Amino acid sequence: METLKVDLGERSYPIYIGDGLLDRPELLLPGLEQKKAAVVTNTTVAELYLDSLTAVLDKQGVEVVQVVLPDGEKFKNWETLNSIFDTLLSHHCERKTALIAMGGGVIGDLAGFAAAVYMRGVPYIQIPTTLLAQVDSSIGGKTAINHPQGKNMIGAFYQPKLVLADTATLNTLPQREFSSGLAEVIKYGLIRDEAFFDWLDRNVEMLLKHDTAALVYAIRRSCENKVAVVAADERESGVRALLNLGHTFGHAIETGEGYGTWLHGEAIAVGTLLAAQLSRRMGLISEAEVQRITSIYRRARLPISAPDFGAKRYLQLMSLDKKVERGRIRFILLRKIGEAFITADVPEEVLTATLSGAAANA
Amino acid sequence: METLKVDLGERSYPIYIGDGLLDRPELLLPGLEQKKAAVVTNTTVAELYLDSLTAVLDKQGVEVVQVVLPDGEKFKNWETLNSIFDTLLSHHCERKTALIAMGGGVIGDLAGFAAAVYMRGVPYIQIPTTLLAQVDSSIGGKTAINHPQGKNMIGAFYQPKLVLADTATLNTLPQREFSSGLAEVIKYGLIRDEAFFDWLDRNVEMLLKHDTAALVYAIRRSCENKVAVVAADERESGVRALLNLGHTFGHAIETGEGYGTWLHGEAIAVGTLLAAQLSRRMGLISEAEVQRITSIYRRARLPISAPDFGAKRYLQLMSLDKKVERGRIRFILLRKIGEAFITADVPEEVLTATLSGAAANA
Repeated sequence: METLKVDLGERSYPIYIGDGLLDRPELLLPGLEQKKAAVVTNTTVAELYLDSLTAVLDKQGVEVVQVVLPDGEKFKNWETLNSIFDTLLSHHCERKTALIAMGGGVIGDLAGFAAAVYMRGVPYIQIPTTLLAQVDSSIGGKTAINHPQGKNMIGAFYQPKLVLADTATLNTLPQREFSSGLAEVIKYGLIRDEAFFDWLDRNVEMLLKHDTAALVYAIRRSCENKVAVVAADERESGVRALLNLGHTFGHAIETGEGYGTWLHGEAIAVGTLLAAQLSRRMGLISEAEVQRITSIYRRARLPISAPDFGAKRYLQLMSLDKKVERGRIRFILLRKIGEAFITADVPEEVLTATLSGAAANA
Repeated sequence: METLKVDLGERSYPIYIGDGLLDRPELLLPGLEQKKAAVVTNTTVAELYLDSLTAVLDKQGVEVVQVVLPDGEKFKNWETLNSIFDTLLSHHCERKTALIAMGGGVIGDLAGFAAAVYMRGVPYIQIPTTLLAQVDSSIGGKTAINHPQGKNMIGAFYQPKLVLADTATLNTLPQREFSSGLAEVIKYGLIRDEAFFDWLDRNVEMLLKHDTAALVYAIRRSCENKVAVVAADERESGVRALLNLGHTFGHAIETGEGYGTWLHGEAIAVGTLLAAQLSRRMGLISEAEVQRITSIYRRARLPISAPDFGAKRYLQLMSLDKKVERGRIRFILLRKIGEAFITADVPEEVLTATLSGAAANA
């Protein structure tokens, strides 16, 4: 087992990464302030792991309230959030009753936000069961629900007490979701870790085969990168925004196609390719670098072709993004593989050309 | 004008108290990070002050988005909150667009919670226009909405950039609401400021006449008391709970009668009388002290008789209160006028006797 520490002063917490951690209650118990916890999960994950987690906690004398939600991004909304509150209230969950989020990014975001606002904040624990959640969404304290007018529009920065990433749970993950997680893994290489990108370029096939050693290394290195960025900028006032490489375009794709049509990592992969193409059109990176990025996504079984909304619709969808400041869209671009930066200084015609050619770029 | 500072490290902020402050934009401008703000208010307050505040800001080049909500505690729910988000999104309000909450406690709680979670947190300013909001709810960063199963169940601790309390707005306040605010003013005397209670005992009639000097003194002293408690305990892990004197019973009354039937201060006055009677039954204070408290409420034109729900229903309503820990209800009791303390150590028969006699105690 590997242990990382997220250093945020009094809000610091550990991340445990390893095989079979769900069977180790001694890791969970320090995160519980009382012998009662509410496990929030979805129907898919519940079927696989809820009984065993409940039994493990029960054996330690912990009363478990089960909150099983429908599975899917389209349920990341107020109605589902409110159904969590209903269950917590009817089971008399209190200010010291911890929430345990067991599932992918949707469950983490929903349960984390529920924890942030239920009784003005209760403790919570993340047990991410997808690759994407293990390397990204479970770390950093971002929680949110979607609004019909935009993704993650309503939420909070709220840190968990601990994160427990059990690689064994990835064996039950559908291949498409696994690849979606790889998109975020690759992102860390692109924005700040050239050596990691090189390693991924050599090992992407090993990861697709679920090679345990490769998996633990990729998750640890991803977490290290994310932790370093989050520790430097908890509330996303500066450098943390680099983590959103591909997200301005990616969110536009997700919103434009309707939540749930694209997996998050799929939209981020294609969004990152648009950011790379924009970077190339601005003379920052070469066509060879764009091709290298395209190639790794293709080998990771990720889409490499953006929907052809047309430039006007893309711009409209992007103006709802949280990264808009004073009406100007801020972009995360690549100076090279391994170095991203933020700028609002993108000539409109270059942006329009990139977006107009979205479908043709594939 | 009086200025108080709420000292919470990097979340510190000033409170301005005085006559005619709504016409002084130089106080508001330092709270705005961009020349755009959304004023959240209700239909009643909008009619009185929204045009003039908009004009004052407009003259300073600040673009104002108006968000006018229906008036009343029963609208302090998710639907109203979501209507705020709809307006903010359709007007492209961004992470640096401040929310200005202008109104009573309901508006402050709603707009404050909206600010806490819109795009994971935007800056906000409190302009309380009721006595209750000026001396209590606008200070301390508690924000929330109600849930059908309990008051203020969903919310956040989120501090404003500044609070602007204009005593001129109290001249348009209905008498019943003014008295409701006095209940919270009297509370500060009861829990920690015996000299202030004595002053109030001598000056309650002056306050009811809206004597300006008396009013400014009472608001300042109330704020000083609240600020001292909040600074010592921002997230209500200890001493801050004393501010909830009368609230465990009061919330039970509000929930039991349906939100909006009783004004908050009215429920708190009667709830405090129940706490005082419980304190007397436990041998902590004398019958003379209970009578002195009853008398000041009566002179402040507040109700002094609790609804006769019966002990069983009271206990059921109270078990939903956020102050419940490990299934035990914690009470705030009086050791004397000017000194409150917290205890879970209340014999059940004494509690039942107090609640059974609720109606008879008047």
